[in-house]
Amino acid sequence: MAISEFALIQRYFAERTLQRPDVALGIGDDCALLRVPVDQALAVTLDTLTAGVHFFPDADPEGVGHKSLAVNLSDLAAVGAEPAWATLTLALPEADEVWLAGFCRGFFTLAARFGVQLVGGDTTRGPLTISIQAHGFVPERLALRRDGARPGDIIGVTGAVGDAGLALAAAYGRVTIPAVHRPYLQDRLERPEPRIRQGLELRGLASAAIDISDGLAQDLGHILERSGAGARLSADRLPCSAALAACLDREAAVTAALTGGDDYELLFTVPDQRLAQVRRLAADWDCRYTEIGVIEPVPGLRYQWEDGTPYRLTGHGYDHFA
Amino acid sequence: MAISEFALIQRYFAERTLQRPDVALGIGDDCALLRVPVDQALAVTLDTLTAGVHFFPDADPEGVGHKSLAVNLSDLAAVGAEPAWATLTLALPEADEVWLAGFCRGFFTLAARFGVQLVGGDTTRGPLTISIQAHGFVPERLALRRDGARPGDIIGVTGAVGDAGLALAAAYGRVTIPAVHRPYLQDRLERPEPRIRQGLELRGLASAAIDISDGLAQDLGHILERSGAGARLSADRLPCSAALAACLDREAAVTAALTGGDDYELLFTVPDQRLAQVRRLAADWDCRYTEIGVIEPVPGLRYQWEDGTPYRLTGHGYDHFA
Repeated sequence: MAISEFALIQRYFAERTLQRPDVALGIGDDCALLRVPVDQALAVTLDTLTAGVHFFPDADPEGVGHKSLAVNLSDLAAVGAEPAWATLTLALPEADEVWLAGFCRGFFTLAARFGVQLVGGDTTRGPLTISIQAHGFVPERLALRRDGARPGDIIGVTGAVGDAGLALAAAYGRVTIPAVHRPYLQDRLERPEPRIRQGLELRGLASAAIDISDGLAQDLGHILERSGAGARLSADRLPCSAALAACLDREAAVTAALTGGDDYELLFTVPDQRLAQVRRLAADWDCRYTEIGVIEPVPGLRYQWEDGTPYRLTGHGYDHFA
Repeated sequence: MAISEFALIQRYFAERTLQRPDVALGIGDDCALLRVPVDQALAVTLDTLTAGVHFFPDADPEGVGHKSLAVNLSDLAAVGAEPAWATLTLALPEADEVWLAGFCRGFFTLAARFGVQLVGGDTTRGPLTISIQAHGFVPERLALRRDGARPGDIIGVTGAVGDAGLALAAAYGRVTIPAVHRPYLQDRLERPEPRIRQGLELRGLASAAIDISDGLAQDLGHILERSGAGARLSADRLPCSAALAACLDREAAVTAALTGGDDYELLFTVPDQRLAQVRRLAADWDCRYTEIGVIEPVPGLRYQWEDGTPYRLTGHGYDHFA
């Protein structure tokens, strides 16, 4: 692929993106020039997706375009930021127009939904890799962080957990899922929905937040480590989808919910005095809201069934599905 | 390489970077939270360096660390921005501690010199690739852009041009350079100096600017295209180093100066009424300042020798060296 083809790709991208009034200069100069609102902090996150590691090399390019932006928007959601701009570094083995057209459909459709302008790009030849940096705004004192959870805070989560991990396990042949559940689960793996609205509404209400990328247990562990606290979770209350419940027995479903990565749901903690307000807001959300446990002073993560008997998480990943 | 090793690398980076007061939250949460000064625009640029494409796989890692940040700082210089933050996406085939230590020496030494804090990182396994995004500040109305060159403006350039391209041609065996000149030329290829100070001083004085990454002729072409103008260059006046002049005959030296990439010098245009001020400032620079031509209304790039006879650029790259 000649240099000019890469230049064409960048021009192609520049023409497809929406235009925001806070972009003084977009793609095409040495730098983009951007206006951050006074009194807001700039939230910056980046994530890289590599073919063969983070997605299958033959994955639907539209899904790859969607997901590569979605995982970054999910990080903005986790700090309560309002999305604004993105940059894209794309390594391509060759200039495959069909793949690029699909990728762009996925990327720019999601970008438009959240008002995100692509303000910079770099295209190189190499093994298929997508690296995206997303930028958003949040008033500094309202930003959701990982280190604010306190004993007594209730642990909440959006949506359902474990679906994406189950779809991935099925793709690897480690579990068989009935055909009727495949489209839903595949969609959960390939088209995660960034919980931007929820992150914005939780500003000033949640004491800590994170998005679930490595699995609920591990990501809650990050909050606990940074907050110097522990937690107790109710195994029965973990929000599992009907598809997950239909595919796995009770024990395996809990393991999937706790260890399945790639969910991109928001996991957050709420002090008691703000719980009523969060519940009122959550009643209007377009996704489930579930309270799954409580922050405790003693470090460590403990699980129990509703009847008080302890649940022991014995494996990580999909050992249980084998 | 286990995930934990990647996590260790990120921690390693987080501990090595300097701390800026405008970073509310650095590496370790879902997003970095950054404070952009009121009344300044945020300048954002990104560049990717891939082993085997942008540098030799066995290149000195310290030089790779330096250059991968330097090329991004050079883009900030080209818009007149003051460097502030960087993010780093590093794909590594394996966790090679010796390589990483060298890379970090080069990266963090340059970062410290320009007051740049690393605020985000992503480390994945893959073919050696370094993707850096740099962020800086510039008052929007003072930003140097590519589209402001006007007929009559004088074309200036910092430093010397063609050195990096000559070193690269030598590395490919297309030209032989005497041993005495090798260290200087190698340094020019591996350790470009971002012209940050010059970019800052040219704010409000230069009518257009770009950094030379693809070669002087091609990068001047970008200014001309965006400004809707042409230019005339004096072949004799192109700033060539003593090393370049010693290695190549006059004709080949001019070709090298016009087409050699990777120089990362600033190329800019100055309206007549601001020329005296630029010359006064440039007298204090730690690099050469040379006026090499003039912007003209007729599109196209024309070259001539001092005696008025036209110089014809007949090749690109290093055809002439063969």
